[in-house]
Amino acid sequence: MKQITFENLNQMQDQLQRPSLEVGKLNEIIADVFLQIKQKKDQALIDFTQKFDSVSLDKLLVGEDEIEQAKNLVDPELKQAITTAYQNISLFHQAQKIEPLTVETSKGVICQRKARAIEKVGLYIPGGTAPLFSTVLMLAIPAKIAGCKEIILCSPPNKQGNIHPAILFAADLCGVTQIFKVGGAQGVAALALGTESIPKVDKIFGPGNQYVTAAKQFASLQSTAIDMPAGPSEVMVVADQSANSVFVAADLLSQAEHGADSQVVLVSWSDEILLETQNEIQKQLSDLPRAEIAKKSLENAVFVKTTNQNQALEIVNFYAPEHLILATEDQKTEDYFVENVQNAGSVFIGNYTPESAGDYASGTNHTLPTAGYAKQYSGVSLQSFEKYITYQKISKEGLQNLGPTIEIMAQNEELFAHKNAVSLRLKAISEKL
Amino acid sequence: MKQITFENLNQMQDQLQRPSLEVGKLNEIIADVFLQIKQKKDQALIDFTQKFDSVSLDKLLVGEDEIEQAKNLVDPELKQAITTAYQNISLFHQAQKIEPLTVETSKGVICQRKARAIEKVGLYIPGGTAPLFSTVLMLAIPAKIAGCKEIILCSPPNKQGNIHPAILFAADLCGVTQIFKVGGAQGVAALALGTESIPKVDKIFGPGNQYVTAAKQFASLQSTAIDMPAGPSEVMVVADQSANSVFVAADLLSQAEHGADSQVVLVSWSDEILLETQNEIQKQLSDLPRAEIAKKSLENAVFVKTTNQNQALEIVNFYAPEHLILATEDQKTEDYFVENVQNAGSVFIGNYTPESAGDYASGTNHTLPTAGYAKQYSGVSLQSFEKYITYQKISKEGLQNLGPTIEIMAQNEELFAHKNAVSLRLKAISEKL
Repeated sequence: MKQITFENLNQMQDQLQRPSLEVGKLNEIIADVFLQIKQKKDQALIDFTQKFDSVSLDKLLVGEDEIEQAKNLVDPELKQAITTAYQNISLFHQAQKIEPLTVETSKGVICQRKARAIEKVGLYIPGGTAPLFSTVLMLAIPAKIAGCKEIILCSPPNKQGNIHPAILFAADLCGVTQIFKVGGAQGVAALALGTESIPKVDKIFGPGNQYVTAAKQFASLQSTAIDMPAGPSEVMVVADQSANSVFVAADLLSQAEHGADSQVVLVSWSDEILLETQNEIQKQLSDLPRAEIAKKSLENAVFVKTTNQNQALEIVNFYAPEHLILATEDQKTEDYFVENVQNAGSVFIGNYTPESAGDYASGTNHTLPTAGYAKQYSGVSLQSFEKYITYQKISKEGLQNLGPTIEIMAQNEELFAHKNAVSLRLKAISEKL
Repeated sequence: MKQITFENLNQMQDQLQRPSLEVGKLNEIIADVFLQIKQKKDQALIDFTQKFDSVSLDKLLVGEDEIEQAKNLVDPELKQAITTAYQNISLFHQAQKIEPLTVETSKGVICQRKARAIEKVGLYIPGGTAPLFSTVLMLAIPAKIAGCKEIILCSPPNKQGNIHPAILFAADLCGVTQIFKVGGAQGVAALALGTESIPKVDKIFGPGNQYVTAAKQFASLQSTAIDMPAGPSEVMVVADQSANSVFVAADLLSQAEHGADSQVVLVSWSDEILLETQNEIQKQLSDLPRAEIAKKSLENAVFVKTTNQNQALEIVNFYAPEHLILATEDQKTEDYFVENVQNAGSVFIGNYTPESAGDYASGTNHTLPTAGYAKQYSGVSLQSFEKYITYQKISKEGLQNLGPTIEIMAQNEELFAHKNAVSLRLKAISEKL
């Protein structure tokens, strides 16, 4: 852990350096994976799965029977929790609908905008020992609300050739249309290119290791869109003297346990909170099953002492954290930050709002911009599964009014056919009068 | 021009193939440009400008005096036209504001979402003989409405070292904050990396040649966002028997004059319209100053005869055209397409709505997804200059209700520190009761 005192933003720039993401290095490997999927399709997927997941599959698609079985395997308590989270996430994403827009910009000129669902989306859910069913909720719920026709989920199978029941339960609850047992860069390549079993999708979502990330980036240079560039997860906690150091320590640790490369930053103008939190971390750390990972991540953690809240705000907007926790009971501090934060993925306000609430169940989306991308990217939302088409309809009268404007502009851009498309219409109108 | 009859969508796939965009090929050139800008900054820009634009500049920034002079050089008629377009575009983009959202997803759990402007944006405006002042309007107006603090415009100077007065006039009208005389891949690299004169921006917008496109793509793999992937411009006209072939021909030509690689497609179930349009094109072509370019583009144009409107709709949604013109007077045909078009950038409805209206002045944005990207991307809008931050605030009571759900989910994902962040808070609440 580094403890530093704020001097100026330039100095912060060095101290808060994130690990650089050099996915470009993997490009050759990824290009080869794409080539193999393009050429051998399903067979390549089966071969890759044999090689990397040590399991030999007959078919990639998860059957109805497997899903039904899975539902019986999930603990009722967990089912209930997933359903509660489902309801909150649904409510918040449902409310994100943008109504169709109609504006008569000038007499007889009607402009409109309407949302349309992206037809086919691919959701990548990583494997590993723990099943990331929460990410299924975060991606499939808005996809379903948007009205995506095909919601395709890919996730690597375990050594028995199965996907974890909790993932299947969540996917079924959310209306995922097809689930395939395939992971890694090959899963992303299959979604981007299509195979005999797996449909080519228009946009790929979801987290993953460096290979998955590089594969998504590779896909994005071709005809597929991706949710956003990905980096290691991060939290920045801004704490004043009214914060509770026990809670702050718990929040920092919950970020640190994600991975050794997780980014953990505490910013405070209270010496007491900085010291107490440090002590609390040591206390809580020993009881954690993932203490080793958390320790590694904490080696790079940064504790910043500022003179006041203005400096803390400067750091927040400079760093643009994925998660920002405002650990305060003080209404003035809260208002100051809520009003002035320009760059952050999601903000957790007050002493009783841990990041894990948003990770699972408050209703906000946990797929958020990392690595400073909160400066220009939003987290996943309903809009991530839609695009907006604009429309215009101009009456004869409208064109008589606006036509000369278009003619003059087209002529000055030396696009005379553009001008002609108006002139010929104006001529026809005047001849019929 | 190819004339084909619709048989099935598979056959269309081949017939409507777009030229493939292999910007990857330029990667080495672009990587070198970025390296030089990174190392030599302004000096590299001055050297590149000497080399490619044949002009030696002392400074890159356009001065206040130059802008004032430019205002006097623009024809009053053009100034008036630009101002009219400015008003329509402003009205439509102003209406795109999304109000802050507040949802109490469950008792004591408040979730919110608010728009924040992207702080620094870069607008790239190509040079050439004709000044693309319309693109200045399309990018700078929504940037200003969004509230971007720095709106940086780059455009290559002419041999006299000047940017066209109409571009400067439009930029000034829209509130562009700084204008730099630099074009090409080096202009994009400067916006992505920053130099002594040019600020590093968060997102880069605007059209350009293959070098500019490749440079934007290169930048997007680093810490800058871009508006969207770019390809040659395209129009698809769907015409029924109530269409006017003179207007249809004019619209197809106005697309064809953009460049030899412009994509032009006419879809109709009326033999008469298909034939008449072909004849009309020949008639109108000869009068156009850019006839040679248009002819080249028309060599690849496709005229598709369908049996009915359903087939035409299939083609539209498969092709996902940048511009879709519905050339019809018939309300039923119009309603059918407006309701069922899933994939298009912008739609022009009826016989009196030429594409050039949207290119310049109706109010919709002319920066639209090409190359089939309308399947998953929207055109530029107010939202392109914003990102959305989510917030949550949970009361003690709220956490007592929702906490157990979070604890169960975290435990099942084996993230015990996540669980702990809730458990410690619940413990503190119960101890104080």
